[in-house]
Amino acid sequence: MRILGIDPGLATVGWGVIDMINQKPKVVSYGVISTPKDKRLPERLTIIEEDLKCIIEKFKPDEIALEELFFNTNITTGINVAQARGVILLTAVKSVEGRLYEYTPLQIKQALTGYGRAEKRQIQEMTKTFLGLAKIPKPDDAADALAVALTHSQTSRLSSQFKIR
Amino acid sequence: MRILGIDPGLATVGWGVIDMINQKPKVVSYGVISTPKDKRLPERLTIIEEDLKCIIEKFKPDEIALEELFFNTNITTGINVAQARGVILLTAVKSVEGRLYEYTPLQIKQALTGYGRAEKRQIQEMTKTFLGLAKIPKPDDAADALAVALTHSQTSRLSSQFKIR
Repeated sequence: MRILGIDPGLATVGWGVIDMINQKPKVVSYGVISTPKDKRLPERLTIIEEDLKCIIEKFKPDEIALEELFFNTNITTGINVAQARGVILLTAVKSVEGRLYEYTPLQIKQALTGYGRAEKRQIQEMTKTFLGLAKIPKPDDAADALAVALTHSQTSRLSSQFKIR
Repeated sequence: MRILGIDPGLATVGWGVIDMINQKPKVVSYGVISTPKDKRLPERLTIIEEDLKCIIEKFKPDEIALEELFFNTNITTGINVAQARGVILLTAVKSVEGRLYEYTPLQIKQALTGYGRAEKRQIQEMTKTFLGLAKIPKPDDAADALAVALTHSQTSRLSSQFKIR
């Protein structure tokens, strides 16, 4: 089974593709979609749709897992990320239909480290270890996307409860 | 010039089309896109995209004006509206490119009543009067969409400042 993990954003969308082979995760590819800050919002959303479509067409994932939105300090950034996430969901559902899942930061931390208050660096270390990589994947948003994909690979037996409602 | 006004939402997207003929606004059509609450978010976003595409293809607007997001009490509703709005922007920009504009509730109130603290009912009355209608358009979201279109028709000489950034 092939999983595409996505870390939603407007300026940067992280993505990571893993294959489950004999129940072991193997990295296929990862990267980020970037949108220029000097472009207007509708154009940035178009870039996200087009690039994500290319990634999905190229890697043909069976299931897609996204990090759930988490609003912390900046509400304007939050609204923009939510608008980008709408475009990501729309693009994703066209390829995998109902096989779309979401995980909170807490669920990702618990799945990868067994510890809900793990730090970003620990998540990245575990992502590296699980995937048998020599280094932590860069940039951070791509590592985050791989972490979501790994979380889904570990919890997919229970996955109906993580389906996006 | 033909203007499509949109009042973004997830459960209900209001829309209204007006023509400017000899600098007078004339209503062409209006209505709402509804998405069932028992469907999952990605499917509801797909309905919004498909229905909005049909409306744009049917009425071929020259410019599109949207109400700006306004977060009040419910952050979950706000996130969902923002995700829907991302899909609306993506769909809209494909048809009118840069001719996409947004107005805050305050700007709409001031444009239609000259008074920033006008009540919803007053806006609806002015929308009815400006368009020469016998009754207030129903449902409310459609009336709101017509109010955005009217606001744009009155401010479009200055419209570069209302372009979506």
